[in-house]
Amino acid sequence: MALRVGIVGGGQLARMMIAPAVELGLEVRVLAEEPGMSAQIAATAVGDYRDLDTLRAFAQDVDVVTFDHEHVPQEVLRALDAEGVQVHPGPDALQFAQDKIAMRTRLSELDVPQPDWAAVTDAAGLQTFLDTHGGRAVVKTPRGGYDGKGVRVVSAAGDADDWFDRLAPGGQLLVEELVDFTRELAQQVARRPSGELAVYPVVETVQRGGVCAEVIAPAPRAGERLVEVAAAIGTAIAEGLGVTGMLAVELFETSDERLLINELAMRPHNSGHWSQDGAVTSQFEQHVRAALDLPLGDPSPRQPWAVMVNILGGPASDSLEDRMPAAFAAHPGVKVHTYGKAPRPGRKVGHVNAVGDDLDAVVYEARAAAAFFGD
Amino acid sequence: MALRVGIVGGGQLARMMIAPAVELGLEVRVLAEEPGMSAQIAATAVGDYRDLDTLRAFAQDVDVVTFDHEHVPQEVLRALDAEGVQVHPGPDALQFAQDKIAMRTRLSELDVPQPDWAAVTDAAGLQTFLDTHGGRAVVKTPRGGYDGKGVRVVSAAGDADDWFDRLAPGGQLLVEELVDFTRELAQQVARRPSGELAVYPVVETVQRGGVCAEVIAPAPRAGERLVEVAAAIGTAIAEGLGVTGMLAVELFETSDERLLINELAMRPHNSGHWSQDGAVTSQFEQHVRAALDLPLGDPSPRQPWAVMVNILGGPASDSLEDRMPAAFAAHPGVKVHTYGKAPRPGRKVGHVNAVGDDLDAVVYEARAAAAFFGD
Repeated sequence: MALRVGIVGGGQLARMMIAPAVELGLEVRVLAEEPGMSAQIAATAVGDYRDLDTLRAFAQDVDVVTFDHEHVPQEVLRALDAEGVQVHPGPDALQFAQDKIAMRTRLSELDVPQPDWAAVTDAAGLQTFLDTHGGRAVVKTPRGGYDGKGVRVVSAAGDADDWFDRLAPGGQLLVEELVDFTRELAQQVARRPSGELAVYPVVETVQRGGVCAEVIAPAPRAGERLVEVAAAIGTAIAEGLGVTGMLAVELFETSDERLLINELAMRPHNSGHWSQDGAVTSQFEQHVRAALDLPLGDPSPRQPWAVMVNILGGPASDSLEDRMPAAFAAHPGVKVHTYGKAPRPGRKVGHVNAVGDDLDAVVYEARAAAAFFGD
Repeated sequence: MALRVGIVGGGQLARMMIAPAVELGLEVRVLAEEPGMSAQIAATAVGDYRDLDTLRAFAQDVDVVTFDHEHVPQEVLRALDAEGVQVHPGPDALQFAQDKIAMRTRLSELDVPQPDWAAVTDAAGLQTFLDTHGGRAVVKTPRGGYDGKGVRVVSAAGDADDWFDRLAPGGQLLVEELVDFTRELAQQVARRPSGELAVYPVVETVQRGGVCAEVIAPAPRAGERLVEVAAAIGTAIAEGLGVTGMLAVELFETSDERLLINELAMRPHNSGHWSQDGAVTSQFEQHVRAALDLPLGDPSPRQPWAVMVNILGGPASDSLEDRMPAAFAAHPGVKVHTYGKAPRPGRKVGHVNAVGDDLDAVVYEARAAAAFFGD
């Protein structure tokens, strides 16, 4: 009987696990939040991922439970785990992707390089941090932020008052030094429960408005030492946090040549979409292999360069499908991936990957093809 | 709204169209012969592909109808076509894949190189052919043969008596000269309704017991002229027969350096499975693009060499899944594709693809990985 992978969440990350899983001969089942989501073709259940009974019923018919997102509550994950359900990544690891203060605390223990940070409960605490960090800082809500949401640059203690006011009793905000970075990188590592690791090449990510716009793999102008340091950081976190499945570590490259950890994700990540067409083993295949504790695939690039450009927002008037003929005709070598989502301003509705030997040409191909799908 | 591709037939060819269609953002619907087939994840209907009402109902909810096989009867195809259903390949083309005598007749009109042949109604006719072709020949039933079935080498007029006895009134058998070939090749061409073509590199196919065992892409030791001739033959047939979607032309390379057409297939074909991991655009993505009349993708190889080895029969005792850990651990760079079919002696249940720069190494990788899944 085919191995059965259960994915909680019906978004595009779940959708993009379907293709490699089908090719491997696995069975994919998705617990979707609602009907008609990205991963609809594999949706065998619709329900609330916060509800233990829903998760328990879903878990009964699969060999492993994994995720499209990191939002399943700890108590639900721990109950499943206690009942013997294979959950990857498990609650012990996922807590660090769910709570940024827990993450910073654990990364400090692991002694991996990160921005100065503090957990603060009020404006006075924030003022103290500002006083010792040049008068500016980044304040983050520990939970629920993504794509730039829940993140704010502050230059006065009162700038986060609205967030302090809404804190639950005992609640804290995370404050981090404003890093003087020259660019952003991302390091992906896969780890299976039995411990095997697969380390992807470090990539450069370009954000616009807090949202990933473009990824170049591997990161250009990355010396051997930078590549090694990034890989070592990724490995230390994967092992130190007990991650199973794909881990993405978002990094700042500072103007004084350090790498500092920005964010973590314990699932396939936008910074790894290039791997679908640019790596021997895509992050989606790798995540499924890792979750099932199957030996990992080769994470090596297949070509010198791969560039991914997100399709954000999308057509204002017609549909993505209406744009395909012109895009395909102009760019027969580019790979277009769309997610079956209705275009809305700023929404990630697809991406294109281009690969090749000449970086300038590959960047051009990816950007020009993606432009066909813009507003 | 997503473009909807309807595939008649739930086998592995339909299954392997799912991954690229999902990635493109298309919707796939499969009319399966029975529940639990290879393409089950996309099966939206189960029914008899010979029944017009079943096909008509299936066609109502899709933008184009295409096929996992060539067995839908002409009268059903023509009725759908007359009702305005987009059917690709259409009945005019498919008749030549369904009837080998019709194919030979049409290829003679197109003046493309093929073995000497005749349509015979009885042993006397077969004797005449044998007398002029060295006393040996190949007899084929015009319809329903595949993987070596319906094909017989004869050396006496009586050797096909059982087939002659079963002929319907007016029925004929095809007799072909026994070609003295050094190897078998296959040429694939995609053609969309509006006429655009994409020509894949000619590949070498290795058959065992009438079944494809191995494919090397591109064909080794193939001079520029051979590559051109093979491409010209594929193009002439795609255009001359009005094929839409993928066309595969199986070719004999003779000991006197000619290429002769053996068989045709108007669908993705075993000789093109390498393209999933070895070409910029796989035959499965290409078939879907062509059926929808979308601009075709680049059919170029991504690496110097790709080798495909079929998994035939499979485990006698345990399951394909039980073999995955050892195979994956030993061959992290090989791509394993399995079809969700129960292993049976001789049955195609999967294949592996390996790619790279060094042909000997790639052949080794593919064969050694496939061997893990053998009996």
